[in-house]
Amino acid sequence: MYLETINSPADVKKLAVAELEALCGEMRTALITKLSKHGGHCGPNLGIVEATVALHYVFSSPEDKIVWDVSHQSYPHKMLTGRREAFLDPGRYDEVSGYSETRESPHDHFVIGHTSTSVSLAAGLAKGRDLTGGKGNVIAVIGDGSLSGGEALEGLDFAGEMRSNLIIVVNDNQMSIAENHGGLYQNLEALRRTGGQCPLNLFKAMGLDYLYVAEGNDVGRLIEAFRSVKDTSHPTVVHINTLKGKGFEPAMRDKEAWHYCAPFDPEQVLKAMDAPKNESKPVPEDYAALTAEYLLSRMREDKRIVAITSGTPDPIGFPPVRRRRAGSQFVDVGIAEEHAVALASGIAKAGGKPVYGVLSTFLQRAYDQLSQDLCINRNPAVLLVYWGSLSSMNDVTHLCHFDIPLLSNIPNMVYLAPTSLEEHLAMLAWALRQGEHPVAIRVPFGKVRHSLEPVDSDYSELNRYKVVHSGSQVAVIGVGSFFRLGQEVCALLKEQSGVEATLINPRFISGVDGELLDSLQSDHQLVVSLEDGVSAGGFGEKIARHYSTTGMRVLVRGARKEFADRYDVSELLKANRLTRGQIVEDIVRLLGE
Amino acid sequence: MYLETINSPADVKKLAVAELEALCGEMRTALITKLSKHGGHCGPNLGIVEATVALHYVFSSPEDKIVWDVSHQSYPHKMLTGRREAFLDPGRYDEVSGYSETRESPHDHFVIGHTSTSVSLAAGLAKGRDLTGGKGNVIAVIGDGSLSGGEALEGLDFAGEMRSNLIIVVNDNQMSIAENHGGLYQNLEALRRTGGQCPLNLFKAMGLDYLYVAEGNDVGRLIEAFRSVKDTSHPTVVHINTLKGKGFEPAMRDKEAWHYCAPFDPEQVLKAMDAPKNESKPVPEDYAALTAEYLLSRMREDKRIVAITSGTPDPIGFPPVRRRRAGSQFVDVGIAEEHAVALASGIAKAGGKPVYGVLSTFLQRAYDQLSQDLCINRNPAVLLVYWGSLSSMNDVTHLCHFDIPLLSNIPNMVYLAPTSLEEHLAMLAWALRQGEHPVAIRVPFGKVRHSLEPVDSDYSELNRYKVVHSGSQVAVIGVGSFFRLGQEVCALLKEQSGVEATLINPRFISGVDGELLDSLQSDHQLVVSLEDGVSAGGFGEKIARHYSTTGMRVLVRGARKEFADRYDVSELLKANRLTRGQIVEDIVRLLGE
Repeated sequence: MYLETINSPADVKKLAVAELEALCGEMRTALITKLSKHGGHCGPNLGIVEATVALHYVFSSPEDKIVWDVSHQSYPHKMLTGRREAFLDPGRYDEVSGYSETRESPHDHFVIGHTSTSVSLAAGLAKGRDLTGGKGNVIAVIGDGSLSGGEALEGLDFAGEMRSNLIIVVNDNQMSIAENHGGLYQNLEALRRTGGQCPLNLFKAMGLDYLYVAEGNDVGRLIEAFRSVKDTSHPTVVHINTLKGKGFEPAMRDKEAWHYCAPFDPEQVLKAMDAPKNESKPVPEDYAALTAEYLLSRMREDKRIVAITSGTPDPIGFPPVRRRRAGSQFVDVGIAEEHAVALASGIAKAGGKPVYGVLSTFLQRAYDQLSQDLCINRNPAVLLVYWGSLSSMNDVTHLCHFDIPLLSNIPNMVYLAPTSLEEHLAMLAWALRQGEHPVAIRVPFGKVRHSLEPVDSDYSELNRYKVVHSGSQVAVIGVGSFFRLGQEVCALLKEQSGVEATLINPRFISGVDGELLDSLQSDHQLVVSLEDGVSAGGFGEKIARHYSTTGMRVLVRGARKEFADRYDVSELLKANRLTRGQIVEDIVRLLGE
Repeated sequence: MYLETINSPADVKKLAVAELEALCGEMRTALITKLSKHGGHCGPNLGIVEATVALHYVFSSPEDKIVWDVSHQSYPHKMLTGRREAFLDPGRYDEVSGYSETRESPHDHFVIGHTSTSVSLAAGLAKGRDLTGGKGNVIAVIGDGSLSGGEALEGLDFAGEMRSNLIIVVNDNQMSIAENHGGLYQNLEALRRTGGQCPLNLFKAMGLDYLYVAEGNDVGRLIEAFRSVKDTSHPTVVHINTLKGKGFEPAMRDKEAWHYCAPFDPEQVLKAMDAPKNESKPVPEDYAALTAEYLLSRMREDKRIVAITSGTPDPIGFPPVRRRRAGSQFVDVGIAEEHAVALASGIAKAGGKPVYGVLSTFLQRAYDQLSQDLCINRNPAVLLVYWGSLSSMNDVTHLCHFDIPLLSNIPNMVYLAPTSLEEHLAMLAWALRQGEHPVAIRVPFGKVRHSLEPVDSDYSELNRYKVVHSGSQVAVIGVGSFFRLGQEVCALLKEQSGVEATLINPRFISGVDGELLDSLQSDHQLVVSLEDGVSAGGFGEKIARHYSTTGMRVLVRGARKEFADRYDVSELLKANRLTRGQIVEDIVRLLGE
């Protein structure tokens, strides 16, 4: 086995081309085996095996520096840079992250997880090299839909003016997570069709040199191409045509479904491939699916409603079957969050009813557009913020902890926190009905909860919190998905100390109900604020500020300001004193002071 | 006079082409007159007069909708859409803003002030039109360097896939605020050189139709071009070649200096034009100039240092003469804030010493890059945040009130607030010396203040606040440019009530000095926090949270969360109880409670 002999890229260089091909086969087998047991990014890694081998054969990492965009395709790179056991030994699978990680290896130059950053980061490495009198090639590898992101296009434009070594490998597998969107992908198609000869060439139009490799899964051809640009004195694009999912039939057939995979049984999967697809299976009890079904039902009656995604249709409940049902009332702008927000603002201005669904971690890519294009203009666009929670993704680059500080401090934004499916859909219905405010809804994360009591249908009187249970001494405000934690705290507090606390569902994250808070002063000594995100800049600090000149004590509970990485949720909650037991303990202590 | 007869675009349509030319002359005269008395954006407006007249001649606003990018070139548009008196009658000059403004006119569809947004906003109007069965053309006008911004490139890419009416006028005046940067501008040049025939075409590569107009200041030619694309069924770019500053000799000669102008004496300016330039005049007592001179002196000894701007070199102290002195140690990335942050991170990773200077209002265009590309990676890049203050720009689109919540809630970012020139330069020297943290410095705004006492040179022990004066009962924390307000409050408090307050310079905005704050509890009842920005998500809320479970009262003073517009600073401060008199009044009241 060749792979077992690869301790560093130097070992790759010792092999002949035929041996490199065998190595690719072994790497692919290792990938499929690990993915089947562990899950992870599938299609992107299977497609980039040969290119990775060829890069390490031609260049000398880490003196030559490779920057992987999004870096969800860096598994083969990890295999060749001293981390192969994390792919061969099931007991060591978790020794590496799913992204490039500077702490793992000197061959990784950045921690990367959001898309479209590689060209700019690599341009920085190149400029830094030139300033410090350094040597070596700098290579950015970008693909999987990342080209449409503004930062990538800014980076290409900047690179077009550089007069120094920079190699940009465009890994064209004809896919984003879902199908590609954006006019530039027509140009990539034309370039593929003409073997790179089409006179219309986005990269050349940006000022870059250009080389096309039709056989992007052929190690020999790739080596030849990379050799021809090695030590280039000016920025050069190497456009390689690859097959996403190569070597695993299901991943080649359904590229969207196999972009990322949970653990699977390879045999079952291969068998199921030829079974007829049942697209009319019942809607799962899942916030995204139920929200999408609600929107589809509304769309039928109201042609003004349009759902928008920026390259992540599936997590917001729109797999291909629902996209087809929505027709022109569904828009995938590609990976382009800034554009998505501005587009939504424009649609709302023109009388449409845009609903932009986006994961918390990616919404932060559009802060200025939220502020300028949307909120200054007060256009009534609707945002659905998914997975905003300490319990959702736990990779440091994909944390969903920061959307409350980000959104709720922007003037004119109404940020709502439903606590149940019914409240969520009522808020969404109101958001679509009203015409006064940009409204964002923090869709609850996790298991669907139902409301036992009727929910309000009108939220036009802003910042009215709801007292769900009246008590005394202590008032607990549970924001959105932490409302349930608030209920548990109240129950445990009563059980342990007999205190009957007031329980509040604030509904509004972006404002303070001053009247209600003031009224608590007569018979409460302590207000507890619970939010499912970081405290810094968040909701609880507003409560603390409101009371800061009074005698009311406020216990602000959320997560510490930190970039937590691959954490265990219950440990994170404990470390932040966010378990019900800890909160009750703190309440009792404060009441006794 | 034709201009006096134009009450709406309908009146433009009544004129013959020769009369339109006369109208353009009158508009230009009115512009120069108003600019000389009032100041404002000069070059962009003078260059776009003919195109504006032609647009209103061919299209029917507001049914046809024109979206002006940045909208600092919308003065001619305002003249033709019912607002001419604001350009003709000096007593009414202030009736219009310097940007498009929905409250002024139905011909303005958005409030716009940041660049690169028009294509996406216009695409939204077009999609909204199509969803609601509406009619009419949608036109985006983009130029002045805005094309290099990520949002604009995302918008062009999206437009390339639309199958509906959208017209994108690219106003190519060969300039940004300073000279253009980015490879795409080479393509614009090639297109100009070949009369639009060059086969390499960025816009076509994005999937857009394309038309070139060489004589972009010729009303007749423009009318012809706009007529040919009116009611187009698919997105089309009209690339017009215009002359920035046209009709005013000084503005044509020095396009950078006349992008924006303060009031001037036209005769003096014309005379001065031919006088030899004195570039060796003494450095003004100004934070930007003094900072740039400091950096230049450091650059001479240390080739790793590089200053970066994203299209605004002048406000950060780098007019052409200093850019020449810096040579390759100065980089203008063009309007591309996202790229600038990622580039800085890459340079720092490679051992360079990047210093990215940016205005507070524009820094928010790169939130995700600050978080992901820079702070997760902890690369020791330096940011200089200029104009962060309630007292700087007061247009709603250019507020510099939000950088504290934006930056200080990002983990790993060290955000410093110097209170004097000496402290600022000491912090900058430390930031360049250290290799542990991304460091941002909120450069004080306004008159340069000097420190009477020695300042610390080492800030590596994070979040250590400095007690400048020890007192009791009340502690006043004055952040950065509000430290002086803190001094004044202490002096007035002593005078009025005899209380000798503690005065604290926190230096660090992004962290809390828990030890110091706790120590205040023994002999203080009230802590006052003063910050020159919004309170929501800001510094004072962290102080309030720190004390929220103790008996300490905290008076948090900053501005309300709102999009204030063209406000009077002293009124804004009063409305937020930020005058020293009001603060002392509130302190005395709270001490008496």
